[in-house]
Order: sequence, then structure tokens, then C-alpha cells
Amino acid sequence: MDSLKGKDIEKRPEEILAAFELLFNPRSVALIGVSANSKKMGYHVLRSFLKSGFKGEVYPVNPSYEELFGLKVYPSLDSIPDEVDLVVIAVPQKAVFDVMEDCVRKDVRAAVVISAGFREAEIEEGEEHHKRLAEIASKGNIKIVGPNTFGMVNLNANLNASFTPALSLIKRGKIALISQSGGVCHVIMPYAIKEGIGFSKIVGLGNRVNTDFHDMLEYLLYDDESKSIALYVEGIDEPKKLMLAARKVSPYKPVVAYKAGRFQRADKAAKSHTGSLAGKYELYVSAFKQVGVIVAEDSVELVSIAKALAYQPPARGDRVAVISLVAGLGMISADICELKGLKLTDFTEETKKKLMELLPPYTIRTNPVDLGYVANDRELCGEVIKTVFEDENVDALVVNYIYSWSEDFLQLPVRQIIEANRESRKPVTMCLNFPPGFWDEEKEILEKNDIPTFPTPELSAKALAGLVEYGKIKRKFSELL
Amino acid sequence: MDSLKGKDIEKRPEEILAAFELLFNPRSVALIGVSANSKKMGYHVLRSFLKSGFKGEVYPVNPSYEELFGLKVYPSLDSIPDEVDLVVIAVPQKAVFDVMEDCVRKDVRAAVVISAGFREAEIEEGEEHHKRLAEIASKGNIKIVGPNTFGMVNLNANLNASFTPALSLIKRGKIALISQSGGVCHVIMPYAIKEGIGFSKIVGLGNRVNTDFHDMLEYLLYDDESKSIALYVEGIDEPKKLMLAARKVSPYKPVVAYKAGRFQRADKAAKSHTGSLAGKYELYVSAFKQVGVIVAEDSVELVSIAKALAYQPPARGDRVAVISLVAGLGMISADICELKGLKLTDFTEETKKKLMELLPPYTIRTNPVDLGYVANDRELCGEVIKTVFEDENVDALVVNYIYSWSEDFLQLPVRQIIEANRESRKPVTMCLNFPPGFWDEEKEILEKNDIPTFPTPELSAKALAGLVEYGKIKRKFSELL
Repeated sequence: MDSLKGKDIEKRPEEILAAFELLFNPRSVALIGVSANSKKMGYHVLRSFLKSGFKGEVYPVNPSYEELFGLKVYPSLDSIPDEVDLVVIAVPQKAVFDVMEDCVRKDVRAAVVISAGFREAEIEEGEEHHKRLAEIASKGNIKIVGPNTFGMVNLNANLNASFTPALSLIKRGKIALISQSGGVCHVIMPYAIKEGIGFSKIVGLGNRVNTDFHDMLEYLLYDDESKSIALYVEGIDEPKKLMLAARKVSPYKPVVAYKAGRFQRADKAAKSHTGSLAGKYELYVSAFKQVGVIVAEDSVELVSIAKALAYQPPARGDRVAVISLVAGLGMISADICELKGLKLTDFTEETKKKLMELLPPYTIRTNPVDLGYVANDRELCGEVIKTVFEDENVDALVVNYIYSWSEDFLQLPVRQIIEANRESRKPVTMCLNFPPGFWDEEKEILEKNDIPTFPTPELSAKALAGLVEYGKIKRKFSELL
Repeated sequence: MDSLKGKDIEKRPEEILAAFELLFNPRSVALIGVSANSKKMGYHVLRSFLKSGFKGEVYPVNPSYEELFGLKVYPSLDSIPDEVDLVVIAVPQKAVFDVMEDCVRKDVRAAVVISAGFREAEIEEGEEHHKRLAEIASKGNIKIVGPNTFGMVNLNANLNASFTPALSLIKRGKIALISQSGGVCHVIMPYAIKEGIGFSKIVGLGNRVNTDFHDMLEYLLYDDESKSIALYVEGIDEPKKLMLAARKVSPYKPVVAYKAGRFQRADKAAKSHTGSLAGKYELYVSAFKQVGVIVAEDSVELVSIAKALAYQPPARGDRVAVISLVAGLGMISADICELKGLKLTDFTEETKKKLMELLPPYTIRTNPVDLGYVANDRELCGEVIKTVFEDENVDALVVNYIYSWSEDFLQLPVRQIIEANRESRKPVTMCLNFPPGFWDEEKEILEKNDIPTFPTPELSAKALAGLVEYGKIKRKFSELL
């Protein structure tokens, strides 16, 4: 967040921020409905806490146990001899209301309600249950994530308030993910673990009884741990609130969204609505664009664009250069850049001349630049990269490397890329792919120095397009501030 | 290859097949230009052979050495006291012609020419070098892969005739990849290693002096080890030859292509041509469709569709069912299916009734089906899956699972999916994603039983769309045979 100077956002909504602070950074947590039975949600919620390394106090609650996994178990919320900042509720639907009343009595202000069987269920009373939950929450001034959610994690606080212990395997990082679907978070989880992508917070909004996308955006605007915000949206009741909040946040912090539910399923009944529903998707997309939200078209693309935005500054223009170890990767990235509306730039005469001097005639010395013939000369590759970064016709860069030959031939110009990026202040994304164990250290150094890497030349280009688009968004809105 | 019965293909081109057999299954290989210097290609080519477990005879050649890594080194091709089926040439460009003349003298019929500096180079003599190479090859009746290539691998023969030893880390499998870019093969390599995707052969065509896409298609049609063929195409001189060969192959063996070079780079000079070049892409795509080649739009999509086609039968129609552990994944797959023109089917009354009995009211019991509430009951999930597979309104299925809770809660119905697939003879693709170490065994069992898995619900749906499209291609062409 480089400049919190707009009129809107100087007035910090302290009350909202304080309420969500209890949710994300509780000093003490009560887990309602813990169990020794691995077929119950409460078992997994307890395991999530035990495995996360959470430093606060944890109070498991269930009248049927006195102890579980070495922890004292309390018979009720009331019996906990301490203030409770957050409760995580994993009891059957029917028992949720009593627990919520307990929360009101104990003045608990934040709850994650994992229990399902509310508005989402194909049962008559679903809507009624939802309202009743909202009413109790309102009475007690309680922020609820859920119901009908896997929960949420704040990786920076080692807080795993979810039913999936493995979410704690994700690295701490700078991306906040707010999702209407737990499934999408669980698709992203293994991808993030395998690719080493760090997240700050991952929240499953579930039925959104009183915590919705706009609330999260409002909070995350002021959350220094989150440098970019990724949204997975299915369909919401009040899209206007989301759009207004996004409009407030996007000049200061990048927001990327992936909208599902493009089509209605094509059974006879739904088919007649397909047109209007597809139209609805288009409405979302055009609204997102108006309020400065970047649109992703795939779950991996969502994470990739959010990663680039969390690591690199927005581009000052749309003139891009592509540098690739080999020509094929350059061609692919160039295709994607042009598909996304970026301009493959023409280098200055000075750069052209310098590249003719640096590179042999066997290779492509125009944009996209091909490094294949000098791949084993790190200093020379560094010179080429520096020259292109410094070209005044270049606003942003993709650098594509893939593992070939072996490490004693191919030299990855790690330091050179980091320095060129830092000195030029021009954003860069990298394709960096290799068999397990070969370039892990190099990747770690690059990412520690804020160079985002991606496994394919398609993704490195799509991520760069996000940085170019965010530059446009910032320029557009800065005129209005 | 289920029915090699068309008139065209009963006449096996024995001579062509025999020539390529020497290339892919040589009994003896000479490596020309081996080196102890890791900055030379010949070092890496030798290491590729040493690390691949190749069972045939290997004869390193270089007059400067007598021994390397424990192997006797021969001063020349002539001095090898044995027949040589294949030579791999990694000498400077200027020395290539003499080596080729040696090949003619020794009656070697297959060569991989890694050396570069031919038609691709920005040097005047490039075209001339190319012609001279073609002439020598023609005189000696030598099939050449290259020049200017990383090489090729035949994983089923442990043959790694490339400069990248790590290509041998790819599993043996049923996909053949023929690529105009070594870069794309090296992007796919780590993806294949990490995802456990098996390949039969991977060939970098390079400058295609006398082995082009159409030759490879012709050979692969009769190659029982390759069940599907993936092509990465940039731009070629005689697209008609490729299209004719694809038209011959596609009724019998699925072919998927990814075409790059959609746009010309946007410098001033090239910009004026952009229209015609983009048009050229469209021409390729429409020609591919006419000859029964499935078009992929991304390197990962290329591999995913080829994988589905190598594992599963084509669909008999376009009516699909989506079954997902959680609703969000179902929605995403359904979106992709509809985007690709598939029909989200309406179940029969019988299926509807059965799903109402099997699943609780909390969950979605229409298409896409949601298994979330019965995730811990493997038999029940199996019943649901079986019911949907057997529905006569269903031609093909996506089943999406992601790791959540933990393995002692979520039960993956591995056997049930395998049985339903086998008994119904309807194709299926799966999204199966998990943190490293959690479901590796389950994934292995599924894939051994020909159930292809993919890391995202987008990819499982795109792969299924490939199976539906291939069904259409087969039906269209079977009428013409």
C-alpha cells in the first residue's frame, strides 16, 4: 500500500478493523464441538489448531470429554476462566443457536461457524435458520465467518481455524484469498504448497451471514500483511456493496477476481435462462473493470496474477519486452502479451546496437530476445538483461528460463535479474521451471527478492499483463483522488 | 489404436517404419563430439546416455580422448568395430558435414543433429548449410532429427538422445510429443515429472531437414506405445503435408495441437502484417479442425488433453455429468464444459429418484452433483457415482476431488470410480489434487487403471471436452472410411 492518502481512506473505520482483528489475531480461541472421533468436524478443527503452531490460548469445549490430545476440555463456553476472542463452532446445525447465545453472554465478538444446514440446504427452514443466526449475531455484535464454511486461516498468526490441518502447510506470504467456495481454496492449497506461493489470509466466506466480500475488502485495505487481494466469486445478493468496496480499495491495493457460474447448467429448465445468466457474468466482468478489479479466468491464473501484484510494482505503461532462454518460450509469452493487449515494444537504436554487439548472429536479437546461445555465460546474459531493462521503450518485462542441459552448463543470472529489476524499477515476471531439486535455491533467492516465478511462459505473461493492467487502474484513479 | 481397418492404413509404409525404428529403437548408438568439458554439448549428450539406462551399445567418438567416464572413446565413426543404427551429432556446425559423410560411408541410416548454425541462424550461409545437409542425408538415405534441436527421447527404450539428462526423469507412458520448440518440451518436462505424466516419445524437430510433423505422424500411427499424439507447432513451410498426415491418423489415433505464433511481434515493421499473421493462426486452427486435430490453447492444456485421450475412450455423445466433492469445483467444471460446447445433461427420472434417496437434502442432487455431505462414506459416494455413470442420458463424466479434512475423514472412492468407468465404458476425467504425500498411492492406482487425473477442475473439464471432441471426430470420419 504505497500511498494511503485518498480522502476516503484516511478515516480508518476503527470499529470494523478492531472487530476483524479479533477474528484474525485472537489471543484466545474456544473450539466448540471438539471430538475424538475422526468422522466429526470437531476432531479436524482441533487437529488444525494442534498442528498450526498457534501461540494463543486454545480452549476445547465439549461436555463429553475432560481431556483430548493432552488438552483440558471445558464443558461449556461459560466455564472457560478467561476472555475468549474467537470461537470456532463445529457442532450440528441444531446446536449452533445455543452456542451463539453463549457467545453473546460471554461477550465473544468473533466466530467461525463451520456448521452447515442453513440457507444453502434444500430444506424449508434454511432461510429461517439463517435469519435467526443473523439476529443473534447482531444482538451480540458478533462478526461471523460462515456458516457452511471450511473456516479460515491467518498464516502470519499460525491461526488455522478450519477443518483442514493441511492448510497450515501453505507458506506465509503476501496474498489474501477471499473465497465463496471452500473447494477453490482447497484447489489452490496444494498448488501453493508445491509452488511455494505464500498467503497472508485465506477465508471461506460460506453463507455470509454478516461477513461478506465488501467487509473483507474494507479490512484488508488496512492489513499491511496483505499486498494483493484475490477473490473467488460465485454469485452474491448485493454485488453493489462489493463493487463500492472494490472501488475504494483498488487504487491502493490490487484486487483480482475470478467469477464462476458463467452458465447455468443446461438442463431443460435452466436452458431458457442461459442467455441472461451468461449476460450476468458479463455484467460482473464489466462492473469489475469499472471499479478497478482485474479479472482472472482460471483458479491458477487468479493466484498467479495476485502473486505478481503482491511482489512487483505496477507497470508505468504497456510496452513489454520478452527475454527467453529459448525462442519457443518467447513466442508463447509474446502471443499471450498481445492477446492481453500489451505492446511488444520496439527497442531503441541504442539497445539494438548493443544487442548486436553482445549476442552472436545465430540468435534472435530483437524482441522477444533469445538467450539460448549464450546460456552458459551468466555475465553476458546479465548484460543483455540489463540492457533491455534499461531501454526507455520498455515498461515491463517477462524473463523465461527453463531447466535444460544441466546446472554446470546453464547459468541462471539470478543476481543480474534482481539488480536490473531493482535499478530500473520496472516490473518483471519470470517463467522458471525445473525438475524437483534442481533450482530450488535459485527460485528461493529470486522470490525473496520479490521476483515472482511461474511454471509456464503462458502464466508469466498473464501475470505481467496483470501488472500492466494495475498500472492503468492506478493512473486512472489517481486522477480522481 | 482400436481398429486399423481403413483402406489407407492397411498398406503399412514398411520402409518408413523401418527407418524410424532405427531412430527410436537403435541397438547401437555413436555419440559424435563427446567431451569432458561441461561447457560443451557433447558432455551433456554423453551424460544423457549414461543416466538413461540405455541397454544398447554406446560408442562415444572424439579423437581427443581415449576414455571418458569409464567408456572407451573412438577416434572416428569409421573406427567403431560394429554396425551403428543411430548417431547423435554434437559437434560445431562446420564439422557436421564431414560427420554426415562418415555416416554415409558407414551406412548409418538415422541421425540426431543437435548442432546448430543452419537455416535458423541470422547468417548468410544458413540456407546453404541446410541444403547441403539435406543432400548428404538424401544420398545416404539417412533420417535426420534436427539440426538445431535438443534431441529426442524414447522413454520406453531408455533412449535419451538429447542434451538434457533430466528428460529421463519423465515416466514411461502413452503420450507422444512432437515439438517444433525444445523450450516447450522443457516446460512440459518438470510438469510431467511433478504430475507423474508418462510419455512414450518426445521429439524436438528442430529445423526439420527431412523429418517433419507429417513423417512423425505417419510413424506414430503404427507405434503401439503411443496412444495419443501431442504437437507443438510454430510455423511450417508445407502445412498441407501435416494436414494430410493428420487426416490419415486422426480417425485411428487422437492428435492434439498447440499452435504458437498467433501474433507477429509488434514492432513497427511487423505491425502492418499482424492482420495476415493472426489470420494465418485462424487458418491453421480451421484446417486442424477439418482434419480431426483437437486444438489446445496452452502448453498445460496440450498435455492434459493428450493425457485424457491416451487413457480413456472417446465419448459417444456430448452429454456430460459433473460430480464433485464440493459445489464450487462442480460449478467451475460445469462452466468450462459449457464454454467448450458440451451439454450439462438432465438426469433420467430414475437417476433423480435414486439420488434423492441416496443423498441428504443439504446437498445438490442434480447435475453437477455435490458429494460434500457424504464425503466420509466411501460406499455411499460409490453408489452415487455408479448411479450417474449408468444414467442413459450421460455420455461422459468429470469427477472432482480435492484434499480436505484429512485422510481419516475423506474417503476417496478409488475402486468405485474404476469399476463404474470400466462397466459403463463411459469416459471420465478427474480433478485430484492434494499436498505432497497425501494421496500419492490413490492417484497411482487410479492412473494404473486408466483414470486420468488433473490438478484443477478447469483442466479435468478441458480434458473431458477433448474426449467428447474426439468422439465426434471418430464418428465423422468413420462414415467416410
